[in-house]
Amino acid sequence: MEIKIMKNILDRNQNKANEVRNLLLLKKVLMVNIISSPGAGKTTLLERTCETLGEKFRIGVIEGDITTDRDAQRLKKYNIPIVVINTEGGCHLDSHSISKVLDSFDLDNLDVLFVENVGNLICPAQFDLGEDFKIALVSTTEGDDKPGKYPMLFREAKAVLLNKTDLIPYTNFKIDFFRDDLQKINAQIPLFEISCTKGQGLSEWYMWIEEQI
Amino acid sequence: MEIKIMKNILDRNQNKANEVRNLLLLKKVLMVNIISSPGAGKTTLLERTCETLGEKFRIGVIEGDITTDRDAQRLKKYNIPIVVINTEGGCHLDSHSISKVLDSFDLDNLDVLFVENVGNLICPAQFDLGEDFKIALVSTTEGDDKPGKYPMLFREAKAVLLNKTDLIPYTNFKIDFFRDDLQKINAQIPLFEISCTKGQGLSEWYMWIEEQI
Repeated sequence: MEIKIMKNILDRNQNKANEVRNLLLLKKVLMVNIISSPGAGKTTLLERTCETLGEKFRIGVIEGDITTDRDAQRLKKYNIPIVVINTEGGCHLDSHSISKVLDSFDLDNLDVLFVENVGNLICPAQFDLGEDFKIALVSTTEGDDKPGKYPMLFREAKAVLLNKTDLIPYTNFKIDFFRDDLQKINAQIPLFEISCTKGQGLSEWYMWIEEQI
Repeated sequence: MEIKIMKNILDRNQNKANEVRNLLLLKKVLMVNIISSPGAGKTTLLERTCETLGEKFRIGVIEGDITTDRDAQRLKKYNIPIVVINTEGGCHLDSHSISKVLDSFDLDNLDVLFVENVGNLICPAQFDLGEDFKIALVSTTEGDDKPGKYPMLFREAKAVLLNKTDLIPYTNFKIDFFRDDLQKINAQIPLFEISCTKGQGLSEWYMWIEEQI
């Protein structure tokens, strides 16, 4: 019974995601769905990206959070359009909530819309929001064994960002193990090794995301 | 409609959780449900706890993981009964899966059963497994803003363990902010500030968990 219910929910989500995707295609807005564990650095990545690409591209952000607008507050200083979706306990964003807030953006004057999903490595990977692609963000302090343990996201994503590389010397994180583990799940996926707080390794990410836009 | 479905799922879960709780009460086994984000240190906490309390108490472990038995492999060396539940994509354990694996334990020869839930700060907080209490484990590298952003777990838990305190000097984690944030959500909850890899601050945790057993 639960499988049938889940299938219905996913089917309804997929229909609305297709609508969102068609609208954004028409408006020529790239939508990027950023998924990670709590505290892996999604907001800091957006801060760095707004700082560097904010002059060149018209950026908008949808902030998904269970409650509070803390992440949105951190992005206010970039003077970009930001809309917060509070899921009130919900563990992921879905295409219906995205569809509702798209009216709040002037889509004709936007190049890219970043969606910061709820901090969760599992459920958000199952829900298409109508994005062009998903990004998996994972931090070294979470350990080097995450691709194998949480494979769905690493299969679904178009790129992986490994954040907090500056903390590797203080942990037992083995980068070769991580790379091998990721390759077993998704052999072709681009991997960016970065530190958002220290600003390391980000130029490759900026170049890659520019190409996508 | 989705709210009704969710209510049904939670009701069915609650009925089975009550059965599990009654059985464990009869068998005098304490069940502790450990919840955290991916990579916050649940398995390392169990390693340290088995090392220190393994002589004094008969410990069993249920390892909840989406896939793989990596965490269970790490605990094998303690020669304790361990059962792995692979949720195959599911984002939390539920009381039905716990009930099924209890047969695999000799409950008459067990003092405490630790459940390592799936790495997820959200969904596991909503599902009663029949445990005596939940423990929230959070690591400093996730940031100091987690209690306010993920309040349900911090309300539900009987104690909070703040892990990876050894990494505070290398991050922008502010311990006073974290303590205040937690207190706003749950003023009375005990907080243990620990580093499982460095073995710091754990004696208070051992004393506390001994009292519970």
